[in-house]
Amino acid sequence: MDSVLRQSKALCPFMKKATVASLRAMTTTATAATTTTRPTISPCGGTISKLQVLARRCPVMGKAMAVQSARLGHHAGLSSLSGNGQAAKAKMHTGHSHNARMVEHDPLFRPEQVQHTPVLPNKLSTGTKPAPVAHAAGTNGHGAKFDYEAFYNHELEKKHKDKSYRYFNNINRLAKEFPRAHMASKEDRVTVWCANDYLGMGRNPEVLRSMHETLDEYGAGAGGTRNISGHNRHAVELEHTIAKLHAKEAALVFSSCYVANDATLATMGSKMPDCVILSDSLNHASMIQGIRHSGAKKVIFKHNDVKDLEKKLAALPLHVPKIIAFESVYSMCGSIGPIEEICDLAEKYGAVTFLDEVHAVGMYGPHGGGVAEHLDFEAHASGQPRGTIVDRVDIITGTLGKAYGCVGGYIAGSHKLIDAIRSLAPGFIFTTSLPPAVMAGAKTAIEYQMSYGGDRRLQQLHTRAVKEALNSRDIPVIPNPSHIIPILVGNAELAKRASDMLLQSHQIYVQSINYPTVPVGQERLRITPTPGHTKQYRDHLVSAVESIWKELGLKRTSEWAAEGGFIGVGEDNADAEAPLWTDAQLGIAESDRGLSADQILERETKVVSPIVSAAAAAAA
Amino acid sequence: MDSVLRQSKALCPFMKKATVASLRAMTTTATAATTTTRPTISPCGGTISKLQVLARRCPVMGKAMAVQSARLGHHAGLSSLSGNGQAAKAKMHTGHSHNARMVEHDPLFRPEQVQHTPVLPNKLSTGTKPAPVAHAAGTNGHGAKFDYEAFYNHELEKKHKDKSYRYFNNINRLAKEFPRAHMASKEDRVTVWCANDYLGMGRNPEVLRSMHETLDEYGAGAGGTRNISGHNRHAVELEHTIAKLHAKEAALVFSSCYVANDATLATMGSKMPDCVILSDSLNHASMIQGIRHSGAKKVIFKHNDVKDLEKKLAALPLHVPKIIAFESVYSMCGSIGPIEEICDLAEKYGAVTFLDEVHAVGMYGPHGGGVAEHLDFEAHASGQPRGTIVDRVDIITGTLGKAYGCVGGYIAGSHKLIDAIRSLAPGFIFTTSLPPAVMAGAKTAIEYQMSYGGDRRLQQLHTRAVKEALNSRDIPVIPNPSHIIPILVGNAELAKRASDMLLQSHQIYVQSINYPTVPVGQERLRITPTPGHTKQYRDHLVSAVESIWKELGLKRTSEWAAEGGFIGVGEDNADAEAPLWTDAQLGIAESDRGLSADQILERETKVVSPIVSAAAAAAA
Repeated sequence: MDSVLRQSKALCPFMKKATVASLRAMTTTATAATTTTRPTISPCGGTISKLQVLARRCPVMGKAMAVQSARLGHHAGLSSLSGNGQAAKAKMHTGHSHNARMVEHDPLFRPEQVQHTPVLPNKLSTGTKPAPVAHAAGTNGHGAKFDYEAFYNHELEKKHKDKSYRYFNNINRLAKEFPRAHMASKEDRVTVWCANDYLGMGRNPEVLRSMHETLDEYGAGAGGTRNISGHNRHAVELEHTIAKLHAKEAALVFSSCYVANDATLATMGSKMPDCVILSDSLNHASMIQGIRHSGAKKVIFKHNDVKDLEKKLAALPLHVPKIIAFESVYSMCGSIGPIEEICDLAEKYGAVTFLDEVHAVGMYGPHGGGVAEHLDFEAHASGQPRGTIVDRVDIITGTLGKAYGCVGGYIAGSHKLIDAIRSLAPGFIFTTSLPPAVMAGAKTAIEYQMSYGGDRRLQQLHTRAVKEALNSRDIPVIPNPSHIIPILVGNAELAKRASDMLLQSHQIYVQSINYPTVPVGQERLRITPTPGHTKQYRDHLVSAVESIWKELGLKRTSEWAAEGGFIGVGEDNADAEAPLWTDAQLGIAESDRGLSADQILERETKVVSPIVSAAAAAAA
Repeated sequence: MDSVLRQSKALCPFMKKATVASLRAMTTTATAATTTTRPTISPCGGTISKLQVLARRCPVMGKAMAVQSARLGHHAGLSSLSGNGQAAKAKMHTGHSHNARMVEHDPLFRPEQVQHTPVLPNKLSTGTKPAPVAHAAGTNGHGAKFDYEAFYNHELEKKHKDKSYRYFNNINRLAKEFPRAHMASKEDRVTVWCANDYLGMGRNPEVLRSMHETLDEYGAGAGGTRNISGHNRHAVELEHTIAKLHAKEAALVFSSCYVANDATLATMGSKMPDCVILSDSLNHASMIQGIRHSGAKKVIFKHNDVKDLEKKLAALPLHVPKIIAFESVYSMCGSIGPIEEICDLAEKYGAVTFLDEVHAVGMYGPHGGGVAEHLDFEAHASGQPRGTIVDRVDIITGTLGKAYGCVGGYIAGSHKLIDAIRSLAPGFIFTTSLPPAVMAGAKTAIEYQMSYGGDRRLQQLHTRAVKEALNSRDIPVIPNPSHIIPILVGNAELAKRASDMLLQSHQIYVQSINYPTVPVGQERLRITPTPGHTKQYRDHLVSAVESIWKELGLKRTSEWAAEGGFIGVGEDNADAEAPLWTDAQLGIAESDRGLSADQILERETKVVSPIVSAAAAAAA
C-alpha cells in the first residue's frame, strides 16, 4: 500500500492535509468500526482499514488500487483463495493489506509489477539515485547491458530511505557471564535482553559437556547428507528424543526450522493433489515461503480467528486435502494460537494440522513440549499423552536454536508422514547433516528440560515481573499471555533510536523490530527475559526504558488508549491476556497469589521454593 | 519419461520385445548419433535420446508425449525458455528428459499432472496398494475426507517399488581413527570411503581446539537471527576470511549452501525485473529450487556446453538481467565447468556469473579457493588476484560442511550484492545464525587450508592411485579431471546390493547413489578418497570392489566399451580427463613423472616431500 499512500499524499488535497493521527485512526478495521467503538484489529494487524475503504471510493485512487489489486491477484471480496501463479506470488500473505504495510518491500515482491501501474508515476524513479534498472526494464535503454551493481544499490537505497535497512549489532554472548555479552571490543559489556536463548541452555554445563565430548569423539562436521555418510547415532537419538517430547511416532531434523517449515509445507502442498493450505495471517516467513514454494492454493485466515477459519474450511470440498498451518506462540506479539479449536475444525473438515511450536518448545508444558502440551498439563505430567491436544495435532515443528540453545529445526508426526518427508523433501535430502556435537547438545538440552521445570518457571516469573514494572510506568507493552514482552514504538526510526540509546547509554541490548519482521507502523522493542535476568538486571532495564521513553517522548499506554488503543495497547482486554502459566502451574503458594512477581521472587530467594529445589536436585 | 516407457512396454509390440541392451543403445543422443559414431552424452546424461525421437513418430506414443510435453511446458524445439507458471513448475530441470529418468519422482512433481494425461491409463492405479488418494482427487469419492496416511503410504510404496527408497546407514565417523567409523554398535568398525569431509578437517586438531575454546567462552548456540542478537565476532571474522579466500569484497554465511543457493537465486531472480536464469542441466538441487522459487524465466543449457549456452544467451535481449548458474566440480560425476569460457560469454551478453564451488573449496587452487582459483594458480600463489578468473566471477558460493569439515554455506561477491542479499533474502533474514563454535571452527579450517597445501595434494595423489588401480582392473570409473571417483553400476537394486556387500562383507562404507541424486540407469558408487586413505585402505577397497564386481557380475569398462560406451565409461576421451591438478602443481619431481601414484606415494614415505614438510612446518 505504501506507494499508493505516498503518492496520494502528493496528489490528493485530503491526504495532503491529513494528520498522522487522523490517518492512524482510519487504519482501524472498517468492519469493526461500523459495529463497535473498539476496533478488533489483532496485536499484529491484518484486516482491512477504513482508509482503504475510503480510498476505493476515490476516482483516482480507486482506479489505481483496482489495477494494482488485479496485478497482485487480490480478490475484491473477503475470500483470499487463490492459485499461485506469477501474480499471486507477489501477493502479501494476508488476504488484505496490513495497516500501512509496505507491499513493495516484501522480499519476494517484484518491483516492476508496481512500476507498471498505469495511473501512478514511476515508483522507482522516486529513488535517490538515477534508476538505470527501471529504464532498462522498461521500453528505453534497450541497447545497454543491465547494470547489476546499480540495481543492488537501488534496492539498498530504498531500504535506507524507508528506514528498514538493518545494521547488525556485534553481540558476543558470554557463556560464563550470562546474560551478558561483549561488543566488538571485548571490554564493552552489555546485558542481552532480546536473545531467543530463552532458558540459557546455550551455556548449560550439561549441554556444553555433551558437546565437548562429542567433538572429541566424532569431530566437527557430519561429513555428508543424511543419505551419504551423515546419518549417525546422534541423529537417531535426537530424533527419538524429539518424538518422545511430542508424544509422536517419529521426528526428522533439518538445518533449521526455517528449512523444516519451508521443506515440509512445500513438499506436502506440492505432492497432495489439489491441496489447499490455510494459513494464519501472522505466520512466520518460513511457512509463508513453504506455502509459496508448494504451488498449492493458499487461503489466509485472520490471526487466531477460528470463525474465519471455519468459514474458509467450510467453503472447500470435504475430500480435498487441506493443511491448517499456524503457530502456538507468535514471536513478535506473543499471542497464542487456539490449538484445540483448530484441531476440532481440522477433524470436522478433514484437514491436517501443522503447528509451529518454535517459540514454545522448552518453555511450556510439564516437559517443555510446548503450548499443546501445556494445555493438558496434568495428563502429560502423569505421562498420559493419548487423547490430548498434542495427540490430535498432526505435525509439530520446533527448533533446537531457541529455548534449547543450539541450532537446527525439526518436524514430529506419524511414521508415514516423517518417512514421506524424509524421502521426498529436497531441503532435507540435499543438505549436509547438522554436526554430531550440535545434535548431541540439543538432545541433552531437550532431556534436561524434560526432567527439570525450574528454568521455565523462573523465566515466567521474570517475564511477569518485567511486564508488571513496565505497565506500572505506563510503558506500552503489547499485552499477551506468553513470555514475549513487545513494547510498542510505532515508528521505524524511533524504534531504532531507542534501541541504539539503550545500547550506547545504558549497555542494554534490545534490538528494534522493524519491517519486514513486523508491519510498518507497528515497530517495537521485543524483550525476552531469561532465568538469568535477576532483579538488578530487571530494575536496570525498566529504568533505562523509562528514561528513553521520556527522552524521545515516545507514546505511553495511556496515550494509545486516548486514541482508542492500537494492536492491544491501551485496550481493555486484560482477561484475554492472563498468562498461560497459571499461579498453580508455577507452584506459587496460595498465600502468595496476590503478590507481584517481584515480591514472589524476593520471598523465594529467602525461602527457596521447594519445587525448584527438588527439581534442581533431580537435575543435578 | 518413465511412465511413458513403462506403459509403452505393455502396449507396444516393439517395446515388449526390445532387450535392455538395445533400449540402452537407443538412449544415446540422437543428434550425436546422426553425425558421429560416438555419442556425445555427458557423464551424467542430459540430452535427447534416439528412443525419444522414435517414440515421437509412433502414433500412440507421439500423441501421449505431445500432451505430456504441453502439460510440462516443454517446447518442441531446442529452446527451453519458459515462464514459471504452474505447468512449468512440474518440468524437469533439463530442457529434455534424461535417459530413462523418472519424471514423476521429481520431489516437486505433482502426481495429478501425469495422472490426467488422457491417452494413458491412470498411473497411480498401478501402485501396489489401492490408491484412495488418486480417487479422492479425481471425480469419485467426493463424500469422503482425504486419507493422509494412505497418501503418505502410497508415496512411500512408489519409492519402494522403483528401488529409490532410501535406507540410511548409521555411520559414526571417529575423529581419532579417521577415516574409520563405527556403526550402530560401537564395536562394528568400517572404513568410510564416501564422506565429503574430503580433507579430514572434521578431526583437524586446530579446528577442534578453536571449537572447544569458543564453546567454553561463547556457549552452544548463537541465540538469534543475525539481526536479533545472533550477529557476533565469529560471523564477522568468518565472512571476512571467506571474502579473502575468494578475493571478493564481501561474503555472507547461511545455514547451509543449500540455503545459500536457494535464497540467493530466489531473491535475485525475483527482484531483478524480467530476469532470466541460465542453468547448467546438471546443477545441484539447491540451485534448481532457487530458480524455481525465484519465479524467473529459466533456460537450461546442456551440461558444460558453452556453444549451447551462447546460443541461448544470444537469443535473449541484451538489456535483460541474466544469471548464469553453474558449478565448478559436479559432485556426482566429477566433471568440471568451463569457468573461463562462461565468464567470457557473461561479459559478452551482459550476464552475471553464479558459480557453485561447493565441492571445490579447500580442494583446488594454491589457497583452496576452488577451481576458479586453480585456473590462475601462479597469480594467486603470488597474491595477485586482480584480473584473474576468480576476479571475473560475480558470485561464488561454497560450503563449510565438506572440505572444511564443519557445516554451513556462503556466498561471496561485491559489497553491494552481499548487502542486497543480506537485506532481502528471507532464507537469510529469518533463521538462527550458526553456532559461534561452528563459525570459529570453519574459519580456522579455511585459514589452515589457505596456508597449507599438503592435505589437498595428498588427497589428489590418493585419488589418482585409486583411479589407476580400479582402471587397471577394468572397473568402470566414470572418467573426470577431479577428486571424485564414480563407479558406474547402472541399476538401482544392484548399486544398493554392491554397497550393502561392501559394508557387510568388507567393512567398507560406500553409499550407492540412486535417483533422484542421479538419473535412473546411471546409478553408481561414489568414492571420495581423503589424505587419510593410505595404502592399506586403498588396497583393501580395490580388492573388495573387484570381488563384488565378480560376485554380482557387474559390467566392466570393456563391456560398456563394447556397447559403444556410456556416460564416458568405455569411451576414448582420456585427453579430456587429464587431472586438473598437474604433476607440476602437485610438486612431483620431474624424474618421477612417469610413475604411478602408488609409486610416487611410496617414494615419498621414504623421502618426505620437501614441499609437504615445508608446508607442514609453516602450518604447525
